[in-house]
Amino acid sequence: MRAEVVAVGTELLLGQIVDTNSAWIGERLALSGIDCHFQTRVGDNVARIVTVLRVALERNEAVIVCGGLGPTQDDLTREAIALVMGVPLRRDAEVLATIRDRFVSRGSNQTMTANNEQQADVPEGASVIRQTLGTAPGLICPVGNKVMYALPGVPYELYDMMERAVLPDLRGRAGQAAVIRSRTLKTWGVSESGLAELVAGRVEVLEAGGPGVPTIAFLASGIEGIKLRLTVKAADEDAANKALDAEEAELRALIGECVFGVDEETMEGVIGRLFLERGWNLGVAESLTGGLVASRIVGVPGASEWFRGGIVAYDVGVKMAILGVADGPVVSREAAAAMAEGARQVLGADVGLSTTGVAGPTEQEGRPIGTVVVGLALPGSAPDAVELRLPGDRERVRQLATISAMNVLRRRLLEIGLGA
Amino acid sequence: MRAEVVAVGTELLLGQIVDTNSAWIGERLALSGIDCHFQTRVGDNVARIVTVLRVALERNEAVIVCGGLGPTQDDLTREAIALVMGVPLRRDAEVLATIRDRFVSRGSNQTMTANNEQQADVPEGASVIRQTLGTAPGLICPVGNKVMYALPGVPYELYDMMERAVLPDLRGRAGQAAVIRSRTLKTWGVSESGLAELVAGRVEVLEAGGPGVPTIAFLASGIEGIKLRLTVKAADEDAANKALDAEEAELRALIGECVFGVDEETMEGVIGRLFLERGWNLGVAESLTGGLVASRIVGVPGASEWFRGGIVAYDVGVKMAILGVADGPVVSREAAAAMAEGARQVLGADVGLSTTGVAGPTEQEGRPIGTVVVGLALPGSAPDAVELRLPGDRERVRQLATISAMNVLRRRLLEIGLGA
Repeated sequence: MRAEVVAVGTELLLGQIVDTNSAWIGERLALSGIDCHFQTRVGDNVARIVTVLRVALERNEAVIVCGGLGPTQDDLTREAIALVMGVPLRRDAEVLATIRDRFVSRGSNQTMTANNEQQADVPEGASVIRQTLGTAPGLICPVGNKVMYALPGVPYELYDMMERAVLPDLRGRAGQAAVIRSRTLKTWGVSESGLAELVAGRVEVLEAGGPGVPTIAFLASGIEGIKLRLTVKAADEDAANKALDAEEAELRALIGECVFGVDEETMEGVIGRLFLERGWNLGVAESLTGGLVASRIVGVPGASEWFRGGIVAYDVGVKMAILGVADGPVVSREAAAAMAEGARQVLGADVGLSTTGVAGPTEQEGRPIGTVVVGLALPGSAPDAVELRLPGDRERVRQLATISAMNVLRRRLLEIGLGA
Repeated sequence: MRAEVVAVGTELLLGQIVDTNSAWIGERLALSGIDCHFQTRVGDNVARIVTVLRVALERNEAVIVCGGLGPTQDDLTREAIALVMGVPLRRDAEVLATIRDRFVSRGSNQTMTANNEQQADVPEGASVIRQTLGTAPGLICPVGNKVMYALPGVPYELYDMMERAVLPDLRGRAGQAAVIRSRTLKTWGVSESGLAELVAGRVEVLEAGGPGVPTIAFLASGIEGIKLRLTVKAADEDAANKALDAEEAELRALIGECVFGVDEETMEGVIGRLFLERGWNLGVAESLTGGLVASRIVGVPGASEWFRGGIVAYDVGVKMAILGVADGPVVSREAAAAMAEGARQVLGADVGLSTTGVAGPTEQEGRPIGTVVVGLALPGSAPDAVELRLPGDRERVRQLATISAMNVLRRRLLEIGLGA
């Protein structure tokens, strides 16, 4: 089964919007075992959309069109699809009623216009994917033994309809009895080649293959670290999960310390869980990260239960006056440890975490760009610090320092365990 | 003149990388007056690349191919282009020498392999765009009276070759004597429809057109506000700049207060300039933005000259203990003003800026999600605060609150002027 993705919108061609929908759809197709050999972008022009759809239908069994379903005169996807199918558009009463309801529930300051009604037009022979989040429905449009799907360009509407209707329909057409599931182990603190070396034995086993054996892929993800993605095809959900559980256990035996989370887990979310388990709370003191650590932490829902706050000590005077850092070099283990202890005391927290270092553009105190020191102050032991050397320019050093500092904290909390 | 963009790489189809190159090229083409009606992505497969190139050449005068010029067996763009041109590949001695030099200058830990030599293969009849940043050269490949360009997929190498060779060549082929220049006015604090109303008179004049009259476009850019882009075609650079200067002055007379920057200027960069002009420095106190304001500010090179630091007062106790906020509701003008004054005093700054509010997921103190209060403490006047109501979910409210707070500060500094 091959599917082409067609993204419609002049704004994509002009570079006003980057087409992230196609990448997302491509990933979902790959995980469903459906090939995607081509992706095309075309502007808001009926003749050109028709051309692109015809080419796509010729070289694939399925075409997923995104965008161009809105209420304006630039929204031409419905019209183009009807032309390719060789059928007229019909106004669907049920879809129209849903659009009306949506306007009523939004309140009186938005009135429905004739333009909005065109969103209820459906090519004859097509079926509708109900709109639950926006006003435009999706469409499933059979053409002989092939199919075109139309989805809104708004990402969260598209994601919903893709998962709810398009992927199940595609899998049905592909006659897939098997399920395909994947799991991503997220790592930090080890290079791609280092990681590959550590798991070389498992990669060999997995590459030998066999029924129910997962495949493995390394995804270098910049400031999100390196991800290991396991994908398995199995008879059912249960069998797939068992195979993934078994392989995850094998991998964790080799690289457990580097794995900070699974799938959608974030470093800060994991840290939150560790703090809640211990009944502790956190205060931070940031120099080169300048608030990035704090801002990622407050992005975790419920962070107020374990996060007290932070001090952004950008100026040396602030480090001394508020955090009690002694006179001397500020890019040092001593200063980082003092900052962490200062944050702990000033913010009334159980644990203090600090960052200091050289983000650039020039070196500082004779220390090169990329020097980062992470300080930790924990109950029952003297504050200390770890020195790291991170690559990249100013912005990248700061981003890497942010997640590195959180990783230092995560590993220390795990070392201490729950008995502290 | 019409040009199609073809991005080559299986990783693009799998969604492992989002194709930002095509969007960037699309924007550059539009600014050069060259139409781009289609963009295509294709995987690392010679037959499919050839198909896509043939289709693209048929419907355009030019094709820009990016990616697939690397040293691995997956890099097939050169081979596909030679097939479309119907010519053999020849190893170019000069290109090869450059690749060798590059390896030597990188030091002894990288050795050049036979794979790297294939990067010196050039289709007969093609000319080379010298590689100055990476190892792969670009290619200019004539096909009859049409042309294909091949560029590396690494963004900075691509940008360089596009500006240095492809755009000048395309403009030459299009016979353009004129230059096209654009300027972007960045606004904050007014809706797209509100902005359209304010400048309606100018839009009418500009839409009437005429020689040397710029076109105008509204670009809604999320947390970067709404941009107004002026584009003009003129006989030379000087005439283009004069036309843009004149129109910028007209627009500023109508919406000057909402314009916070031009082209690449950022809100935090503009604030930095205002502080330096006044010889003041800044301290911040953040509740719902949790360090985002501080982290954007320390991203400005030279921020240490005017930024003291910040307090992330996430916990109510921290607001009281460190910032001296009185007992009572913390999502209030009183609390925001007290936080701003507290930041000013604790951090020893001339100016204090604060944020408090409700980011969600639930309302707080009976105030709805999206309620944001920005506090300001300036020399010579009592601290005060402004209340805003911002849309979106938790993350969006925090992002919008960050730039809104900086905009409140910007406008107040401008009101005070330099005489304070």
